[in-house]
Amino acid sequence: MTTFVGSVRIVGAGLLGTSIGLALTKQGVDVSIASRSTKSVELATNYGAGRAATDTDSPNLIVVCVPPDQTAEIVAQELRIFPQAFVTDVASVKQSILHSLETMGAPIERYVGSHPMAGRERGGALAGRADLFLGRPWIVCAHSKSLPAATKAVKDLASSLESSVVELSAKDHDRAVALVSHLPQLVASLLAGRLIESDSKDVALAGQGLRDTTRIASSDPDLWMQIFSANADQVSLALNAFAADLKEASAALNDLSKTENQATLRQVLSLGNTGVEKIPGKHGAKHSIYSQVVVMINDEPGQLAKLLTDVGEIGINLEELKLEHSPSAQIGLVELYIAPAKEQKLITELELRNWRLV
Amino acid sequence: MTTFVGSVRIVGAGLLGTSIGLALTKQGVDVSIASRSTKSVELATNYGAGRAATDTDSPNLIVVCVPPDQTAEIVAQELRIFPQAFVTDVASVKQSILHSLETMGAPIERYVGSHPMAGRERGGALAGRADLFLGRPWIVCAHSKSLPAATKAVKDLASSLESSVVELSAKDHDRAVALVSHLPQLVASLLAGRLIESDSKDVALAGQGLRDTTRIASSDPDLWMQIFSANADQVSLALNAFAADLKEASAALNDLSKTENQATLRQVLSLGNTGVEKIPGKHGAKHSIYSQVVVMINDEPGQLAKLLTDVGEIGINLEELKLEHSPSAQIGLVELYIAPAKEQKLITELELRNWRLV
Repeated sequence: MTTFVGSVRIVGAGLLGTSIGLALTKQGVDVSIASRSTKSVELATNYGAGRAATDTDSPNLIVVCVPPDQTAEIVAQELRIFPQAFVTDVASVKQSILHSLETMGAPIERYVGSHPMAGRERGGALAGRADLFLGRPWIVCAHSKSLPAATKAVKDLASSLESSVVELSAKDHDRAVALVSHLPQLVASLLAGRLIESDSKDVALAGQGLRDTTRIASSDPDLWMQIFSANADQVSLALNAFAADLKEASAALNDLSKTENQATLRQVLSLGNTGVEKIPGKHGAKHSIYSQVVVMINDEPGQLAKLLTDVGEIGINLEELKLEHSPSAQIGLVELYIAPAKEQKLITELELRNWRLV
Repeated sequence: MTTFVGSVRIVGAGLLGTSIGLALTKQGVDVSIASRSTKSVELATNYGAGRAATDTDSPNLIVVCVPPDQTAEIVAQELRIFPQAFVTDVASVKQSILHSLETMGAPIERYVGSHPMAGRERGGALAGRADLFLGRPWIVCAHSKSLPAATKAVKDLASSLESSVVELSAKDHDRAVALVSHLPQLVASLLAGRLIESDSKDVALAGQGLRDTTRIASSDPDLWMQIFSANADQVSLALNAFAADLKEASAALNDLSKTENQATLRQVLSLGNTGVEKIPGKHGAKHSIYSQVVVMINDEPGQLAKLLTDVGEIGINLEELKLEHSPSAQIGLVELYIAPAKEQKLITELELRNWRLV
């Protein structure tokens, strides 16, 4: 982990702006926060994300964290007001913003767009977390006119927040996110939309599968209209390919008495297995960064407290803990998440203390 | 919660069979477990799900928990071997099993099919949990020839496992699950399948949205081929309706310069919002059944152990625990899940001990 060198101005104090501010402030970086909403600035500064911006600030790097359809305008404005600063943004589309800035004649040498692949269901300053970007990809989109120093500043920012920097052109970025983010959003919305005409009693039968596949259908339509509008070509391509696969599956399902149709449908399921295996860290980036040690405890009062006292004595810091407790089974499983370097020590010491590891 | 009266034979000692056995055994019910796999029986009985079946058993109710394509055959066999017993099954399709039994000439008066809407990603006896069915719908499918006493026995079973009983005809069941379970599975498989041709670097950018929408694409193709085959008509109908919506969205996306196309796409997103709102208990039945108390702890060694020691002294049983720990914030949030009746006591006692509740 590298510490960011320089002062940072954050424009927009929502989830991303506040999270960046929290992490940088912790490193000792001077963070100033600006927003059209004075209430947001107050919330974010009270939360520890930095100080309110003043007229005399002279930031080295400006991070624009506003909705996609305002991003180009605010980036251009910041480039104009702070002629010494590098400017980046965190919007989830990149080509259209760069094109708008070019059209406006903005001094784009000092601009390098970026996109941290991190978020939470809850938005707003108070949902901010300093570790929001930990282990997440942070895409940095240098372009033909950008200064190497501008790219370096944005990469340093991402690295200091413990993201993993991915360098892509704006075009490649937009193609990639069309597949891994915009297509899933559209499919989830369409799937959830199918529930509307249905009997509420049918929908009440929903299990975890439907909940997971439709969770992101609760996303903000305004934000997503901005994203789809700015990346329509790439989303269209991804959606058409999906539709072609769907058509084939549908035809197969229409007559499963034919062996070749059975083979087609089984192929859809098998390819689904293969596709999902391709996603790294399926259980979330955080869990793949921390090591997991699972301990089986007896269902007796005080067992978990005793385990945690032991972990404390061993001197290892718990990053996360999950207890899955079956009220009637005689055992419970405790998942401990720790830094990978501590895994072997924890295992050895817990076994010495007669804990049963799974 | 009612206790089940009578003895129960479970055929098939996987996740569902073992979970049913665990819960019934806890109530003091005599549970005998049979399976083609003696190893499964051994695992399940050691785990506390009941005793191994013997030749002299005379069960009141038999629960067949085997894969869908073996269900009709095993149900028929159990009806024949135990002429006094009622028989149910837990397969996720219902019409085709009933039809097969009719075709075989089985004594279906004593058979009432059922389907608990509960499951886990992990299968097998050791994934069994007595509270697997808690608050989940359990569909009971009486038919024109079934004895009222058979239906009552199955409903009593479901109630005693704290499920919420839903009575549906086999036909209505198959229509409902086509929408809330089979369509999401197919869509998730197709979506995950789109990742295969893509650059691994693109897929590496995946966030939580793609993970959630494709999680169930890792399901077992063999099991799902059985389900799709047994419910092809209903799944076809659901898939065709989805495909029609998709076509409309795709056409709109092709030219977003037109106001009416923008309106169409926004409608897709808004209907997605409405659809997902229609799903009850979005955060999972278990969490909505237990009460959640959130405690803020300082990021100091021993704090969590101290909290749990206090909870133990207060004498309240933890059902689940989750620690969300932000490595750089000075605080951590501990989510305690407890029986609702204990919530007020826990809050009062923790505040007395100076814990900060959120």
